Amino acid sequence: MSSSSLGKIAVVGSGAVGAYYGGMLAHTGHDVHFLMRSDAAAVRAHGLTIKTGGKTIHLNASVHEQTSNIGPCNLVLIALKATANAALDSLIPSLLGPDTALVTLQNGLGNEEYLAQRWGAERVMGALCFVCLNRTAPGEVTHFDHGSISIGEYQRPISSRVQSLVDAFAHAGIEAKAVAALLTERWRKLVWNIPFNGLSIAAHGATVADILADDELRKLARDLMSEVLDAAGRLGHPITAEFADFQIERSYSMGPYKPSSMIDWEHGRPVEVDAIWGEPLRQGTKAGASLPRLTMLHALLRRITKS
Amino acid sequence: MSSSSLGKIAVVGSGAVGAYYGGMLAHTGHDVHFLMRSDAAAVRAHGLTIKTGGKTIHLNASVHEQTSNIGPCNLVLIALKATANAALDSLIPSLLGPDTALVTLQNGLGNEEYLAQRWGAERVMGALCFVCLNRTAPGEVTHFDHGSISIGEYQRPISSRVQSLVDAFAHAGIEAKAVAALLTERWRKLVWNIPFNGLSIAAHGATVADILADDELRKLARDLMSEVLDAAGRLGHPITAEFADFQIERSYSMGPYKPSSMIDWEHGRPVEVDAIWGEPLRQGTKAGASLPRLTMLHALLRRITKS
Repeated sequence: MSSSSLGKIAVVGSGAVGAYYGGMLAHTGHDVHFLMRSDAAAVRAHGLTIKTGGKTIHLNASVHEQTSNIGPCNLVLIALKATANAALDSLIPSLLGPDTALVTLQNGLGNEEYLAQRWGAERVMGALCFVCLNRTAPGEVTHFDHGSISIGEYQRPISSRVQSLVDAFAHAGIEAKAVAALLTERWRKLVWNIPFNGLSIAAHGATVADILADDELRKLARDLMSEVLDAAGRLGHPITAEFADFQIERSYSMGPYKPSSMIDWEHGRPVEVDAIWGEPLRQGTKAGASLPRLTMLHALLRRITKS
Repeated sequence: MSSSSLGKIAVVGSGAVGAYYGGMLAHTGHDVHFLMRSDAAAVRAHGLTIKTGGKTIHLNASVHEQTSNIGPCNLVLIALKATANAALDSLIPSLLGPDTALVTLQNGLGNEEYLAQRWGAERVMGALCFVCLNRTAPGEVTHFDHGSISIGEYQRPISSRVQSLVDAFAHAGIEAKAVAALLTERWRKLVWNIPFNGLSIAAHGATVADILADDELRKLARDLMSEVLDAAGRLGHPITAEFADFQIERSYSMGPYKPSSMIDWEHGRPVEVDAIWGEPLRQGTKAGASLPRLTMLHALLRRITKS
């Protein structure tokens, strides 16, 4: 495929995730336009900087402060915090043409549904980003680790547009794959995120190593995983107990890693409580799962992150 | 009864609770000796001050910094924090005569057992204090509200020594009663303390009003009560669901009240995690109760109060 086959691309929400994935596409020749607020002046003056794998990439990024200045696109990458989804209602319409694809790179559950309800399920795709990024200065993103992206259609099989986007990321040096069951992949990611992101805050700032070193917290993390498995299974996303065991095992290599929600909380930024805990809890409860620990975790997190 | 019938009394742990209950006995003519550390100099210089019910009581209290200077007593009131119980191993022996009664005024479960294992079950009595007290200056305790005390034998019926102590407190103007089932009373108190003291910390500083105003936290408090009822029932302490409902209802009148454990935690003082949550969890689990929320609460509190 040619590097222009994706057509015109908008990135809505140009924090670290949007700037990195959108920036890597722009760097490899795609027509990418960034909706940017706080960093707009810095990027206009000095370009967008991506530090990755020992290299520093500078881009003269196309920056806009309103989506009406971008206009209709073929593809919209959505990388806002899920807590800011209400802003999409005014941001998205200017970007829509008849066949515009909307790809949510956001965390947790409910984001595809949010887009589908407003602009039609046929437009919606989703992506899971497994990446360690930080905005290290205005207009500068540093990529520390990982970086793979899994892309799928919302409730449909893998399509040619999914495959084109996967190919484009691969061409930009990012490990990318197409997934047939996007929501199952979301639940699989939640098996780790629900306990570790949640307990890191509920235990008032416990790193992954802290949780694993404490017999009671480690058992609690595993018990929370069992609840997530129960909910996912009832919703048509079977996940094995071995997968959960492996999620515990692989966490030992992370050391004193701070889950992203813990970093958000420590910095007083919004935490995606509804997307990561609230929506899975609602869906699982509706499906008949018994979720006492997840219910308790959600109640505590909602209160803790409010203040 | 004469006011001297209790004989020689020691108060071990002369924080607000020890100073108040021991002080009121001293004020009404009993022979009370206080083991005191941080406030000893202030009390030697200016006496012990108790502010209660609009009155200010001054006492020339008998103050000691070592129990060996007090010597054998007829009655020992123990009002240390339960987290400091290990200190009793060196404090108690000097106070023991052949028939010395040991009365724990401490919170939660396990304190009677601690005393019984070391110095014989026949010595042990317990008391539950329903009181709002604060140490307001060195050597000064202010009594804000409530103040009743329920006294019983450890695993024995009400005895004449229980009745004598009840009478002595009543004579000192304190609402006091003898209880036949001391451990059942402890479990009844835990029905409130486990959820409200626990969630106030786990939710990062939620007052009683905050918990009641949040639908999820209020339901969680009630669900925790159900677990406590299940544990208590299996251990021979039947408590009705109506009692739990009433504990929620009566809490509305407390307003933005901070449970005592929350105040300890806010001030960086030790929290009695093992006595209030750990021991009930161990006993309930051993009796076959299903306690997922209490297990989770204990795991979180242990970690939160450690730092």
